[in-house]
Amino acid sequence: MTDLLVDGRVESGLPADDRGFLYGDSLFETIAFHDGRAPLWRWHWRRLSADSDRLGLIVPAESLALEECLSLAGAQRCIIRLTLTRGSGGRVYTPPADPLCRRIVQRRDWPADIERFRHDGMRLITSSIRLASGSPIAGMKHGNRLEQVLAARDCAHRQADEALLEDAQGRLIEAIASNLVMVIDGQALTPSTGSAGVSGVGLAWLRDQEAVNVATAELHRRDLARADEVMVINSVAGIRPVTAVDKHRFAIGATCRAWQRLWSECLET
Amino acid sequence: MTDLLVDGRVESGLPADDRGFLYGDSLFETIAFHDGRAPLWRWHWRRLSADSDRLGLIVPAESLALEECLSLAGAQRCIIRLTLTRGSGGRVYTPPADPLCRRIVQRRDWPADIERFRHDGMRLITSSIRLASGSPIAGMKHGNRLEQVLAARDCAHRQADEALLEDAQGRLIEAIASNLVMVIDGQALTPSTGSAGVSGVGLAWLRDQEAVNVATAELHRRDLARADEVMVINSVAGIRPVTAVDKHRFAIGATCRAWQRLWSECLET
Repeated sequence: MTDLLVDGRVESGLPADDRGFLYGDSLFETIAFHDGRAPLWRWHWRRLSADSDRLGLIVPAESLALEECLSLAGAQRCIIRLTLTRGSGGRVYTPPADPLCRRIVQRRDWPADIERFRHDGMRLITSSIRLASGSPIAGMKHGNRLEQVLAARDCAHRQADEALLEDAQGRLIEAIASNLVMVIDGQALTPSTGSAGVSGVGLAWLRDQEAVNVATAELHRRDLARADEVMVINSVAGIRPVTAVDKHRFAIGATCRAWQRLWSECLET
Repeated sequence: MTDLLVDGRVESGLPADDRGFLYGDSLFETIAFHDGRAPLWRWHWRRLSADSDRLGLIVPAESLALEECLSLAGAQRCIIRLTLTRGSGGRVYTPPADPLCRRIVQRRDWPADIERFRHDGMRLITSSIRLASGSPIAGMKHGNRLEQVLAARDCAHRQADEALLEDAQGRLIEAIASNLVMVIDGQALTPSTGSAGVSGVGLAWLRDQEAVNVATAELHRRDLARADEVMVINSVAGIRPVTAVDKHRFAIGATCRAWQRLWSECLET
């Protein structure tokens, strides 16, 4: 079985002049598949389409992209990375006027520790890496992820499960590979990703559920002291409770468990 | 003649799991070669080594890298892109503890319009794209160049030769692919790249010259009104005078012409 499709063809490598490689001139989606379907496909596609509009990338036909992802996923539980690059050409940073965008589909094994984290929770730190703020590419899942790589390196070194990222101005933005939700005085709150961070698909799904209300709010590290619940959310791992951030400890609360049930019922049955 | 070396071998493509492609987890140098030598090699290598330390990449032996670049350059006037990626592996953003870094050498033709711009000057705009500020990866020539791609797209659309980039706080930082120098009251000034932008090799060479004094200063768009000279500098195109930024007009001054002579004498003879 192959693990790489480039524009629908089985390939062993990528063109070295691909702008995704040269400049990170790309978007990607990391999509959970099981039993031959991707329950969050609609939200992934919505984000990829919206971000492509912002960057001037041309999305392929949705049915074609889904078919290619499915052909790599098969019936297994696995992760498919769908990357859309601006293809080749242009003049250094200047992109071609009519880019021939390239779609790259790759398969990854399902991570081992998701169930444990969902059940037992995660221990977080606040990262020593701060995200740049006021980014013109904030919110998008683009190929410029070096800040996340450095934060992940710091996190592994400090033996934490995940890390919260502040921006240059000290606002909490997200975790390295998840969005952040804190419950304070009975209200679920999440930071804006309008200036830094990624607008995650897992969170987008959650906010689309009728029974769920998550407000956008500016949050700081000091707000951890008054949080009743903290959790992190992404489209693959789902909703994971946070039991510690630095010196703060949190119980796994009713909101988290209710949302986890909703997630399982809607997306994993 | 080949145009691509991967770890010293002639290849037709790149591994699809290269972290440079997946996350922009890479550094690169764009190096001018002519007559079988790269006059700025020492400055390129100094930056690549320093940036690699910051990111935790492992540089190859300098002699090996130079030899590979030379083997692609031959005796022609051309540009070699030397990319150092964190290789393959790791766990999503988390890099391998001991990365097997990958070096990728590519050849590009010499750009056609450098001489004309050096002689006649360039017409710039201020970009509508603002760089994120407070970046933990500021100053480095890393593979996360999507801000520059968007600025170059805007610049091409508006038919300017280059564009000045402000950061999110309205400070002038650099041009899209060059550093910025303004002469005000007889003093040459350049913005800091400590919070956004790239610390360029052409400018580093210039500041190492005994006869040259370029101070670091916070500059804003309003300072253009009192600039006697404006110029942009990069390692390939050298020193190019700026004759216009938006509504401001500038004469090509004595400082620019003196530095251009220094550049030609030291680097191109």
